[in-house]
Amino acid sequence: MSMETSALLTDLYQLTMLQTYHARGMEELAVFELFARRLPPQRGFLIAAGVEQALDYLENLRFTPDELAWLAGCGRFNQRFVDFLAEFRFTGTVHALPEGTACFADEPILRVTAPLPQAQLVESRLLNIIHFQTLIASKAARCVLAAPGKLLVDFGMRRAHGAEAGLLAARAAYLAGFSGTATVLAGLRFGIPLFGTMAHSLIQAHDREEDAFEHFAAAQPDNVVVLLDTYDTEAAARKLIPLAHRLRARGIAIKGVRIDSGDLSEAARRVRRTLDEGGLDQATIFASGDLDETRLRQLLADGAPIDGFGVGTRLAASTDAPILELVYKLQEYAGKPRRKRSQGKATWPGRKQVYRTFDADGAFAGDYLSLEDHPQPGEPLLRPVMKGGRRLSARESLNTARDRIRAQLAALPPALSANQIALAYPVHIAPELRWLAEQLDRELH
Amino acid sequence: MSMETSALLTDLYQLTMLQTYHARGMEELAVFELFARRLPPQRGFLIAAGVEQALDYLENLRFTPDELAWLAGCGRFNQRFVDFLAEFRFTGTVHALPEGTACFADEPILRVTAPLPQAQLVESRLLNIIHFQTLIASKAARCVLAAPGKLLVDFGMRRAHGAEAGLLAARAAYLAGFSGTATVLAGLRFGIPLFGTMAHSLIQAHDREEDAFEHFAAAQPDNVVVLLDTYDTEAAARKLIPLAHRLRARGIAIKGVRIDSGDLSEAARRVRRTLDEGGLDQATIFASGDLDETRLRQLLADGAPIDGFGVGTRLAASTDAPILELVYKLQEYAGKPRRKRSQGKATWPGRKQVYRTFDADGAFAGDYLSLEDHPQPGEPLLRPVMKGGRRLSARESLNTARDRIRAQLAALPPALSANQIALAYPVHIAPELRWLAEQLDRELH
Repeated sequence: MSMETSALLTDLYQLTMLQTYHARGMEELAVFELFARRLPPQRGFLIAAGVEQALDYLENLRFTPDELAWLAGCGRFNQRFVDFLAEFRFTGTVHALPEGTACFADEPILRVTAPLPQAQLVESRLLNIIHFQTLIASKAARCVLAAPGKLLVDFGMRRAHGAEAGLLAARAAYLAGFSGTATVLAGLRFGIPLFGTMAHSLIQAHDREEDAFEHFAAAQPDNVVVLLDTYDTEAAARKLIPLAHRLRARGIAIKGVRIDSGDLSEAARRVRRTLDEGGLDQATIFASGDLDETRLRQLLADGAPIDGFGVGTRLAASTDAPILELVYKLQEYAGKPRRKRSQGKATWPGRKQVYRTFDADGAFAGDYLSLEDHPQPGEPLLRPVMKGGRRLSARESLNTARDRIRAQLAALPPALSANQIALAYPVHIAPELRWLAEQLDRELH
Repeated sequence: MSMETSALLTDLYQLTMLQTYHARGMEELAVFELFARRLPPQRGFLIAAGVEQALDYLENLRFTPDELAWLAGCGRFNQRFVDFLAEFRFTGTVHALPEGTACFADEPILRVTAPLPQAQLVESRLLNIIHFQTLIASKAARCVLAAPGKLLVDFGMRRAHGAEAGLLAARAAYLAGFSGTATVLAGLRFGIPLFGTMAHSLIQAHDREEDAFEHFAAAQPDNVVVLLDTYDTEAAARKLIPLAHRLRARGIAIKGVRIDSGDLSEAARRVRRTLDEGGLDQATIFASGDLDETRLRQLLADGAPIDGFGVGTRLAASTDAPILELVYKLQEYAGKPRRKRSQGKATWPGRKQVYRTFDADGAFAGDYLSLEDHPQPGEPLLRPVMKGGRRLSARESLNTARDRIRAQLAALPPALSANQIALAYPVHIAPELRWLAEQLDRELH
């Protein structure tokens, strides 16, 4: 069984709590909500992502015979409980924000309603799945907003945190509006467009830079993008001109060049001039190297003649804000709202819904967080996506979700679409919800 | 095929370069080295980790029929090349630092010697594997140095970046000296000791906090650690006292308590007093919530009576330094040293070795980076671990590597073991290496 589908990819306390629930027959309906406690100071909004993978996980969740044998032998669990786990399936209901919805602190991305043991066990992996893709889609959306109309490609796999992060960063970035990825497996698994050029090693393995360019061009004549900065960027651009003319005679065009180091703005300007003067005005310039939304804005504000960007490490590890405070909290059990009051970590109790209002231009004008049975102005965002442990509709295509994000980014208030975060987006707490929280606090005293 | 073993978990450019190498018959021996270009400003040393997983990857690397069919149909590769990939195996030699070796900028963690296409293809995933575990082992080592003798447990799976990150963060933290992890799958896969208590949801699902404690204690009487901060930490500690006496009559001991929010130092002091006065002086206090090495030092300097710590998100995503500048560079091809000279990214050419010197007390006294055939004072650190694509010795046990790290941490110079980073550790570049780099630069002009 692969690690990403294992029921044991969870925290030990889930299993010890389940043993308690099982021993006490505590199997009534529980409602858990997954949401961001607060946003990182570097983020004005989040893009909810990973719901599809979360539903896959829930649909396929079961303990394998090997896992059950290991649990029975580890000395912590009694056989009656292990037998219960052998039959364990997720049979609950899930409400979720549509993949790619812009969302804010306190707003549930996912709501799980299921018998307490089922809703409890899945906490750790649901967080792990939704957290990562939401993290990356949110970061990628900022890049897309910073470089409208530019080709953006995910280059981050090598320094993403492991295999799944590499693969799913490609998915989350594509959802958010990137043109594609360098990660080949994301092409096979998700049909995401692939992009790639060459590494410095190809140049270094040749004694002459122009031989490397020529051999590469001959081997894939349809997609010739050459890397200029192995030794001296401008010298490489100059060497490219006569080669390009020779290749043209063989029917091969230089599609573009890549620059990966130095002052990208200045280098791109000089390379552009050399290419234009040499008759390569159709060749595009692609830049990479420590890029993120801040650098993209700087380069474009500076008028750098760059047509596309490879965004790698800083995207795939979201380096300026490498985690989100996503949590998964019990809000109702056995028909009764529940509230955690830990210092600095109190939650809004009950089954909730998010309502979004829009201004005359269709831009987001503020949200209401409310109890599900107390509607507010605006459009309700959480929708049922799973019932009885099965998806309610077929898997949505990646491009449908991608179109949704494009529309969401277009409807952001101007301060958010400019990646400014000083002005918080208003999320109003409905009066009934405040009242319920106060009532629960009084009962606890 | 699971994602973590797929040959397509690589960057597209590796395959396009391979097609070029294949077309030109460029299959002579290449030497690539994997190393940190520089250390993050927050790190004084790194702990090399993940070599075992890297060797697993190399030993098992092959393209599946499905992957080959997909490559043949994607329009980028010719059939002759796809046929070449069908036979593709890694048959090279690998030298590596022993798992858990402390290392510094420019020092190779891994050196791969293989026919150029083989050594090239594996770049992306080798980086992805070594990067993550080295990142986490280095962070975890700082926590271990900050809290000597304390119980440290990895709690980070839920906000680690995906499944593999969750699982391997547990491994890397245990290697670095953590006592164990909450991630159950790491117990099954690696035999790492598991720790866990209860979540707030168990408390919230009960109408009375003391009922939750009692039910939990009855269900796993051997390991009763209760969570105090769901509503009011001190009140919960007071409720625990009479319950503990009732449980003792049934032969059940309260092993400890956990505090997860608020001013941990102050809360621990008050809880300690309450427990001691109530006859629970044997019960330990375990703390969690946004912990890292800095908070651990503060809490311990403050004299907080805390016996163990759950270190989660900030460990598993290494939030203060979420990436390392690890790179994998061609240093020799066809018997000739190679050098990349890109601005700010130049490399030291040739096959290298790291020599470590020690002072009279056995502490690290400085390293030499040299060409392999120019020995320097000190102990050579890189050792052969794979030949002909097969491991040279049986897999090392996790505890052997763990013992090695304990010894490495004890031998760090005092500034590094105090997590101070102002004074850089000396890595001397041997004169022959400087000379070779200069010679290559001259040839390129």
